[in-house]
Amino acid sequence: MSDEIKNIWKNADAVCFDVDSTVIETEAIDMLALYCGKMEQVKEMTKSAMTGKMDFKEALSKRLKIISPTMAQMRDFIQTHPFKLTKNVKKLIDELHKKSVAVYLVSGGFRGVIGPIALELNIPLQNIYANKLKFFFNGDYAGFDENEPTSKSGGKALVIQELKNKYHYNKIVVIGDGITDAEACPPADGFIGFGGNVIREEVKAKCKWFVTDFKELIDEL
Amino acid sequence: MSDEIKNIWKNADAVCFDVDSTVIETEAIDMLALYCGKMEQVKEMTKSAMTGKMDFKEALSKRLKIISPTMAQMRDFIQTHPFKLTKNVKKLIDELHKKSVAVYLVSGGFRGVIGPIALELNIPLQNIYANKLKFFFNGDYAGFDENEPTSKSGGKALVIQELKNKYHYNKIVVIGDGITDAEACPPADGFIGFGGNVIREEVKAKCKWFVTDFKELIDEL
Ligand SMILES: [Mg+2]
Ligand SMILES: [Mg+2]
Repeated sequence: MSDEIKNIWKNADAVCFDVDSTVIETEAIDMLALYCGKMEQVKEMTKSAMTGKMDFKEALSKRLKIISPTMAQMRDFIQTHPFKLTKNVKKLIDELHKKSVAVYLVSGGFRGVIGPIALELNIPLQNIYANKLKFFFNGDYAGFDENEPTSKSGGKALVIQELKNKYHYNKIVVIGDGITDAEACPPADGFIGFGGNVIREEVKAKCKWFVTDFKELIDEL
Repeated sequence: MSDEIKNIWKNADAVCFDVDSTVIETEAIDMLALYCGKMEQVKEMTKSAMTGKMDFKEALSKRLKIISPTMAQMRDFIQTHPFKLTKNVKKLIDELHKKSVAVYLVSGGFRGVIGPIALELNIPLQNIYANKLKFFFNGDYAGFDENEPTSKSGGKALVIQELKNKYHYNKIVVIGDGITDAEACPPADGFIGFGGNVIREEVKAKCKWFVTDFKELIDEL
């Protein structure tokens, strides 16, 4: 890895973590699909989305329409599926907080799922950027907030730019396992690929620093 | 009143009732605004909507944005504000059901509010055509279903046409206090103005039969 990215990391005043397969070990939407008995259909959809040119919002919309979680299912899912934090992520975020580095969760997942994870990590709820599900009064699934930047292709970059404009951070670092995380840099000043849960070769190839254990990042703080 | 509309009434095989100020004595959205402490702002909005050329959906959207009812407020509102049925409406609907006339509630109001009213009147829930509020997972107001025909100007006419296409009714009659009810005829075969709770002169002027007590309709069945 280059010294440049290490230097950016040491001097970061804001760090944005991806959630699924980064802060937590799994993909929440897959777990939700499984919980709602729609795993097979969602998997097939994901496959056809991969081969085609479906954009992020369309893929999200289609998968959610298949799952169509009710508010009660969502509540039960969150209560009965405490997500496992990835090894050393809590320690890393504690260290960042000690250094007064601002920590954000920026995710294409769902705010309702991420809220409890943020609480566990002492991340203020307003530092979550994620998608918001909608429900009808009877609890039926009613879509998601399409104005949320995280619901769009290139949405993570929009969030980073918004944070830069608002708080004038000098160095924002993005950490994640996915290509949408890599694509948020620029505007982010640095991107660190994370392969502790799943290794995506195109991400690994694209980034200047790829780690498989958050301990590597703690050691370089 | 002309014999023609009386004749249509006697032979109706479907009757669509407006809800606010027709089946119930008041306007649910005003009651909701009052409950949420937003009565003054909504009143002002309604006034400026009346003078301008705001269409139905825009007026609905603006008033709801002011009220922004949470799911909990909506639940509490419905539980603590049982709506008063207009005199003789229950008796009239019982008579229609006895004659095997299909009865519908077609309203620019909200399905969550109208559900309990329908139950009280033995109207199946699938015979409700009304707007559907949306909420985020945390219960915050998240808009309404803009695909629902009742959310649009001319929406009641769309519902009547849909019912005609679907069930091939010979004679559909619409009963209501408002201009949007009058405008649903045609495609409805007959419109009966109702002035038992509030009298709107433009409706009274427009219709061939105007009643102030549902007993008048029972007597002509
Ligand atoms: Mg991820
Ligand atoms: Mg009315």
